[in-house]
Amino acid sequence: MEFKAKDIALLLHGVVDGNPDVGVNDVSKIEEGRAGTLAFLANPKYENFIYSTRASIVLVDKDFVPARPLSCTLIRVESAYDAFATLLQMYDSMRPSPTGIEQPSYIGEGATLGEEVYVGAFAYIGKGVKIGNHAKIYPHAYLGEGVEIGDHTVIYSGVHLYAGCRVGASCILHSGVVIGADGFGFAPDGEGYKKIPQIGNVLVEDHVEIGANTCIDRATMGSTIIREGVKLDNLIQVAHNAVVGRHTVMAAQSGLAGSTKLGERCVIGGQAGVVGHLTLADGTHLTAQSGISVNTKANAIMRGSPAFDIAKYQRCYVLFRRLPELYDQIKELENKVKELTEGSK
Amino acid sequence: MEFKAKDIALLLHGVVDGNPDVGVNDVSKIEEGRAGTLAFLANPKYENFIYSTRASIVLVDKDFVPARPLSCTLIRVESAYDAFATLLQMYDSMRPSPTGIEQPSYIGEGATLGEEVYVGAFAYIGKGVKIGNHAKIYPHAYLGEGVEIGDHTVIYSGVHLYAGCRVGASCILHSGVVIGADGFGFAPDGEGYKKIPQIGNVLVEDHVEIGANTCIDRATMGSTIIREGVKLDNLIQVAHNAVVGRHTVMAAQSGLAGSTKLGERCVIGGQAGVVGHLTLADGTHLTAQSGISVNTKANAIMRGSPAFDIAKYQRCYVLFRRLPELYDQIKELENKVKELTEGSK
Amino acid sequence: MEFKAKDIALLLHGVVDGNPDVGVNDVSKIEEGRAGTLAFLANPKYENFIYSTRASIVLVDKDFVPARPLSCTLIRVESAYDAFATLLQMYDSMRPSPTGIEQPSYIGEGATLGEEVYVGAFAYIGKGVKIGNHAKIYPHAYLGEGVEIGDHTVIYSGVHLYAGCRVGASCILHSGVVIGADGFGFAPDGEGYKKIPQIGNVLVEDHVEIGANTCIDRATMGSTIIREGVKLDNLIQVAHNAVVGRHTVMAAQSGLAGSTKLGERCVIGGQAGVVGHLTLADGTHLTAQSGISVNTKANAIMRGSPAFDIAKYQRCYVLFRRLPELYDQIKELENKVKELTEGSK
Repeated sequence: MEFKAKDIALLLHGVVDGNPDVGVNDVSKIEEGRAGTLAFLANPKYENFIYSTRASIVLVDKDFVPARPLSCTLIRVESAYDAFATLLQMYDSMRPSPTGIEQPSYIGEGATLGEEVYVGAFAYIGKGVKIGNHAKIYPHAYLGEGVEIGDHTVIYSGVHLYAGCRVGASCILHSGVVIGADGFGFAPDGEGYKKIPQIGNVLVEDHVEIGANTCIDRATMGSTIIREGVKLDNLIQVAHNAVVGRHTVMAAQSGLAGSTKLGERCVIGGQAGVVGHLTLADGTHLTAQSGISVNTKANAIMRGSPAFDIAKYQRCYVLFRRLPELYDQIKELENKVKELTEGSK
Repeated sequence: MEFKAKDIALLLHGVVDGNPDVGVNDVSKIEEGRAGTLAFLANPKYENFIYSTRASIVLVDKDFVPARPLSCTLIRVESAYDAFATLLQMYDSMRPSPTGIEQPSYIGEGATLGEEVYVGAFAYIGKGVKIGNHAKIYPHAYLGEGVEIGDHTVIYSGVHLYAGCRVGASCILHSGVVIGADGFGFAPDGEGYKKIPQIGNVLVEDHVEIGANTCIDRATMGSTIIREGVKLDNLIQVAHNAVVGRHTVMAAQSGLAGSTKLGERCVIGGQAGVVGHLTLADGTHLTAQSGISVNTKANAIMRGSPAFDIAKYQRCYVLFRRLPELYDQIKELENKVKELTEGSK
Repeated sequence: MEFKAKDIALLLHGVVDGNPDVGVNDVSKIEEGRAGTLAFLANPKYENFIYSTRASIVLVDKDFVPARPLSCTLIRVESAYDAFATLLQMYDSMRPSPTGIEQPSYIGEGATLGEEVYVGAFAYIGKGVKIGNHAKIYPHAYLGEGVEIGDHTVIYSGVHLYAGCRVGASCILHSGVVIGADGFGFAPDGEGYKKIPQIGNVLVEDHVEIGANTCIDRATMGSTIIREGVKLDNLIQVAHNAVVGRHTVMAAQSGLAGSTKLGERCVIGGQAGVVGHLTLADGTHLTAQSGISVNTKANAIMRGSPAFDIAKYQRCYVLFRRLPELYDQIKELENKVKELTEGSK
């Protein structure tokens, strides 16, 4: 299916600069552009590529002034990046999407399915599960007893939801996600440990995306909660009774220990960790590989393990890298002071 | 189902202080108490909540003296925390638990199932597998050829056990656990690597709990071994030929490299790592995000990457944080010494 | 099935030193040798075990001179380690291997299967999937629409391949691997984020091995690429649009952020991380738990978080561990300078 530059410009409220009738049927990165594709230029450091790209159409910011001649057609828009994201969404939504109930699948007693749902082969829908309209449950998904899934939510293959957990509307859970496994709770008992039963659940609110193989443990009591709009990357650990505030983002392989509360719009870097029972204020930013063990104030940016204020950390790390020089300076001072002391006798 | 304060007190060898006939049908956290629920107070820093909680009954340590009037009924016990854990266990054991063989499931030639087992739909039981009495094999579990599972062990949905691995009695393996994938063994071979076949297996002894998406690789030869009572959290890596000693606890996202031996009752913090071929003595404690590359003595507490004695580490880290001041002190000294040197000429 | 020393020697181009007719039917580690097994001695630090091992045959390097009497038969070869690896491969290739299509499995419209393939029960082969000759698709594997799998590739149980991803020949993907989940791409949108659709795919070239529960995200556009001969351990994160160069090795729990390019023959240590949009040159070595945020030159060895040259890092870390002494030296200097200053007045 081909689209002409003039039609795309209309869609994106943009202006064509070049041939309005040139057509495209795919998108590409500007540095890998091929004839018949549309690319975009948002970051000035990629500008060089626009003069050599073979893409037929390039989206640019409306005030872009080419430094050299171009062979592509431009569409000038308010924000090339946003316009491109919009196009990707349109492209994505035009892709065929599975519906219906494939066989064999397992649907337990009392389970209810909304309208236009997809249930893949080998999906397991436990007793009393409730699935909203337009939800998609891919093959090998496991929905334990009483699980609830909101409208338009996508559960990819091999997601495991333990009994009693609830996921809101318009969420995406990627393959291998485990929601509601027992929190890691044990009490010392002679030489070993006895298990503290974990009888709570996990609540995932609306518009949440959870990356592949990420784990969110059920609460000991009450709920582990992932608030609206949260985005979790792959291989993340969220321990029992944690609460992740609205629109917070966590990068891959990061982890939250038990009962910790993250505020809204926090950013947790990759491989970073948060110890248990903390409260991180709204907008807290923890850099990659850092580990935090103190509560924070709003919009704090923290680094290190244990973490402290990033500006202070960076000064310290610069000096850490200069320790051999500092050591030499101290040695030099010791020699001089020794000379002075001997001279003053 | 409702329980009265006097019945619960009898069960827990406690004493009622308040209305012996007040009833509860659920448990709650003291800070989220609702009428009709039972909570507990063990940690003094939560004491404030007992004066405002809406929980009907609160378990307290027997010598608790309220500072203000209470609206709840107390049950005084030896240890509020232990008594609560006991109640949770009773509560948990009363929950209905699946049994029987759901269809479709796959049971290979020569496999033997114990009494009162559960095999969920889409579970795969390979040739010659042996499953003990009262074991539960949830949907989408994969038990490769010759796998053995002990009595009362629970294998949750989507656990993968490669051929020849053995799991003891009363274990719990959470969703996404992979037991017995090939150890990471390669020998250089010209410009690339050739695979060293991994022909050993994994042995998991009794009373072990393994968290979601944790991986335990099979041995090159012999066995990777998880000893009795070990508790592993989520997303942990245990490499080939490692041995984890009895009652050792590892927190989420930690990892052991190949052939390392952990003693008994060790504690490995979250995101910590242990390099290969080490021996950590009994009771070794490695703090979160630390990385250890030396053998330890019994009960050593180690921190840092590479890790050393925690007390020494903490002194070093305090000074790391003060490096800008130390730098200023050195500058100041240099100036003074320069003055003195010039003055003494 | 028993093999005699003389037959094994013939196979390995070795020479028997002892009883050529002694037989073995299994392999063992030298320190755990049992009668009827074959072990090897390559690392001199294990030499002591050869004098007490109960293994019937031990492979040794051809110039090995025993310091004490031996009860085992030796086979002298060019390299004991390589010869043993060869034996393991023969042993491994003799193990029975599954073939045929188990039921129930799901094979979508237009899917094509090569010769001598294995498709396990509950495997899901989507529409238009192409599976090469001698490939093995274990139970609970999910191959989304249009996935392609090369000849002789093994997909273990519970691997999830999203639509459009391609895996080459002679690859091994361990249980729980997720290939092609959406890259973590979001654009700020008022108080939250909107998803950037990820319409690219993942390409895995030939002879790649991928460890359990490792995740490789699909590209936003174009492909995330794992080049020929790459070996990835367990629980690794490879983000969208990353490229991992030929014969590069990554240890468990390490991670690559988006759009990063690793050269050939790089080595990434366990729990190490690479930030996005970097280029690491061929042969770069990043040590365990390090985090790198700069491009590298060929064969650089980097340590720390953020990482720098390992030799410099180690000098700095030695001094970090000596900070309490340096602090005392500074204090001492301050006292002496104070005395001198007062004395000079």
